[in-house]
Amino acid sequence: MNMKVFAAELVGTLTLVLFGCGAAVLAGEFVGQLGIAFAFGLAIVAMAYGIGSISGCHVNPAVSFGVFIAGRMTGKMMLTYWLAQFVGATIGAAILFLIASGKAGYDIDVNGLGQNGWGAGYLGEYSLLAALVFEVVATFLFVVVILGSTHAAAPTAMAGLSIGLTLTAIHILGIQVTGVSVNPARSFGPALFVGGHAIEQLWLFLIAPLVGAGLAGMKARIGFLEKDAA
Amino acid sequence: MNMKVFAAELVGTLTLVLFGCGAAVLAGEFVGQLGIAFAFGLAIVAMAYGIGSISGCHVNPAVSFGVFIAGRMTGKMMLTYWLAQFVGATIGAAILFLIASGKAGYDIDVNGLGQNGWGAGYLGEYSLLAALVFEVVATFLFVVVILGSTHAAAPTAMAGLSIGLTLTAIHILGIQVTGVSVNPARSFGPALFVGGHAIEQLWLFLIAPLVGAGLAGMKARIGFLEKDAA
Amino acid sequence: MNMKVFAAELVGTLTLVLFGCGAAVLAGEFVGQLGIAFAFGLAIVAMAYGIGSISGCHVNPAVSFGVFIAGRMTGKMMLTYWLAQFVGATIGAAILFLIASGKAGYDIDVNGLGQNGWGAGYLGEYSLLAALVFEVVATFLFVVVILGSTHAAAPTAMAGLSIGLTLTAIHILGIQVTGVSVNPARSFGPALFVGGHAIEQLWLFLIAPLVGAGLAGMKARIGFLEKDAA
Amino acid sequence: MNMKVFAAELVGTLTLVLFGCGAAVLAGEFVGQLGIAFAFGLAIVAMAYGIGSISGCHVNPAVSFGVFIAGRMTGKMMLTYWLAQFVGATIGAAILFLIASGKAGYDIDVNGLGQNGWGAGYLGEYSLLAALVFEVVATFLFVVVILGSTHAAAPTAMAGLSIGLTLTAIHILGIQVTGVSVNPARSFGPALFVGGHAIEQLWLFLIAPLVGAGLAGMKARIGFLEKDAA
Repeated sequence: MNMKVFAAELVGTLTLVLFGCGAAVLAGEFVGQLGIAFAFGLAIVAMAYGIGSISGCHVNPAVSFGVFIAGRMTGKMMLTYWLAQFVGATIGAAILFLIASGKAGYDIDVNGLGQNGWGAGYLGEYSLLAALVFEVVATFLFVVVILGSTHAAAPTAMAGLSIGLTLTAIHILGIQVTGVSVNPARSFGPALFVGGHAIEQLWLFLIAPLVGAGLAGMKARIGFLEKDAA
Repeated sequence: MNMKVFAAELVGTLTLVLFGCGAAVLAGEFVGQLGIAFAFGLAIVAMAYGIGSISGCHVNPAVSFGVFIAGRMTGKMMLTYWLAQFVGATIGAAILFLIASGKAGYDIDVNGLGQNGWGAGYLGEYSLLAALVFEVVATFLFVVVILGSTHAAAPTAMAGLSIGLTLTAIHILGIQVTGVSVNPARSFGPALFVGGHAIEQLWLFLIAPLVGAGLAGMKARIGFLEKDAA
Repeated sequence: MNMKVFAAELVGTLTLVLFGCGAAVLAGEFVGQLGIAFAFGLAIVAMAYGIGSISGCHVNPAVSFGVFIAGRMTGKMMLTYWLAQFVGATIGAAILFLIASGKAGYDIDVNGLGQNGWGAGYLGEYSLLAALVFEVVATFLFVVVILGSTHAAAPTAMAGLSIGLTLTAIHILGIQVTGVSVNPARSFGPALFVGGHAIEQLWLFLIAPLVGAGLAGMKARIGFLEKDAA
Repeated sequence: MNMKVFAAELVGTLTLVLFGCGAAVLAGEFVGQLGIAFAFGLAIVAMAYGIGSISGCHVNPAVSFGVFIAGRMTGKMMLTYWLAQFVGATIGAAILFLIASGKAGYDIDVNGLGQNGWGAGYLGEYSLLAALVFEVVATFLFVVVILGSTHAAAPTAMAGLSIGLTLTAIHILGIQVTGVSVNPARSFGPALFVGGHAIEQLWLFLIAPLVGAGLAGMKARIGFLEKDAA
């Protein structure tokens, strides 16, 4: 196991959860849904350039799965990425919980920790079907952008920016629907601390992003939505 | 017909409608007009880098028309682009309708699907003349930016970003006037589902963007607003 | 007189006024001061890549003056730029007035056209001294960024983005103080249509930006805040 | 002492304080926390491209310390940077105070000057522990992004953008906690004018960012989170 890659993915996923979920928990009423959307997207921009040269900055098990299905990464390497991502997300959630607890009146059962969800009591109270469709489609499109932006035919220096801003767009659209996961690790970290409902609904945020990312990876594998070789 | 190009334009236009109109329908009251403007613009940034190396990411029949008039694309190729764009916009609107329907109380006749319009009952209730002038001028300037940013004399790696952020600026300005089309396909998809008034007013959003884009293409064709050859 | 350069500066300045002042007039109550700030800044991003390879995209008489003082442009050329910029700003303001007039109840004497100002009755009602200091310092820093970003030692492909986002930052800060000019043409166009107070206060927005830009140009001329030659 | 480097760092830090704290003081109620976050981040984007080729645009004593610990700068050079940064931040705060005083009813004891803080009476009233953890972790991650983005293995032309947008993300998250320092000079300038509580709490904003930046520098020094040499 490459320790630099492991550390990079851990720190990157930690940052995504701390910045993104942190914006929701510590600042949601002040920055609104648009501010939360930028926090998630700019966390990706930060880490894409900060650690991208080391690990490619997946910071998302679904992205690593899509890259694996596309044939750009071994299964063994993917497991290293997954471990680092889930550990990083958990540490990010822990740091956020520690900071949030520094405010009088903060109650994780009431204020949450930026966990994902759907249905009664969760933001826009969208149906399970809507949540499922949104997560599969959004992750599919997210991974299409990732695979395309990092393809040799594209100006790859811009990839970190385009990928991060894509995540911002997805959050603008979807926070009311599921809080936006498209990333099993990002859902796992907060759910671990919040427990209850967040754990019960975690399955969707593990499965749907993998399905969407897998479909995007398959499209790339068969050469669809891929630039022809010169 | 090149299937990769067709698929790329279809997915790209689908994303533009899903992200942009989705922001309006699913999140408008939370992210405001600025959030909607960023969703439309960042959808272009996403797709410019995600599929740009395959099709150039027009995702807009007016843009393809301008590129055709500028002499950078054949008429036959333009028709392929148009078909993909209208199909993609329709699928994008369908997915959005499916997700939106997952919220109790959503009624397409009341909440709409991000359709364009003007006059009584539509946002700022601007006149037909204002709507027409806005759409022609905005599309003209949009296509000037597109043709200039992708010109060999410009740093073309930045084109996707500059074009997307231009669309954001146009939306900041114009949502109250027409909801901002500058793109016949983006207007067509939602109108098909909303019907009624949106269909009656569709003609303006088919014609005005083509006029604006055609003027920009003609300027490029005659070498105005084009860098001299070295 | 180079007609392409003239046309580029005219269209660019037209766009800056239409997008920026348009955001204030047509959308101010919906997008807020942050939305207006992004509209002005992204108009620069749009045009920097859209017409930058033709004219350098000054779209601002103070910028052309700073470039002239820095010794990067002849005085005769500067006058061509100035003419195009004032004409473009006037046409931009005219188009905006035409669109704004399409809304029932729009009254230029009440709603304005995005003109600059200070003192009693103007936004934050700041003093003349505050307005003067703000415009001189902001233009100085703006032109420092422009001269630095376009210097051979910098990654000049990024210049359009950094310059546009600098203008956004300046607007976030300063709209309450003067509405933010840092650009005599941007102040001239709307004032011409609004008349009265806007014309009386126009002198400050002609002089202060030129002073700030001149100081930045002089610093560059004497090699201060300039990269040493290799 | 290199006067160009000194002038660049002075002007850069002046701009950061003027734009960032200025957004809070002059426009906070109009642009909200998201607008303030963008003002701080875009000030870095502005200066990274405006003066970056001269001094690297640290504009932050903690960043210079991290760069020193990483072995990329001498201690003597760091002291030059520190002096310029503290002087620049003080002048920036002075200019802001001058402009703010131009508004009737402005009272520095009530409205402040964008100073940092924590506890009773300061924004979200977070605990000292939360403030400390936030500042150390945020500065650590900020400097990880800076060292990674400017590393030879990264597309360094993008560094100014990624670093600035990282600072925006950190502000979205953390304004309620400490007002966000991650920069001793940015805290020093306003505190000098505000006095009292701001001076009493200044120690944390001198120490915590240095600790976070030092940890990031050490990680780079031992090769952790650094790309392997080719």
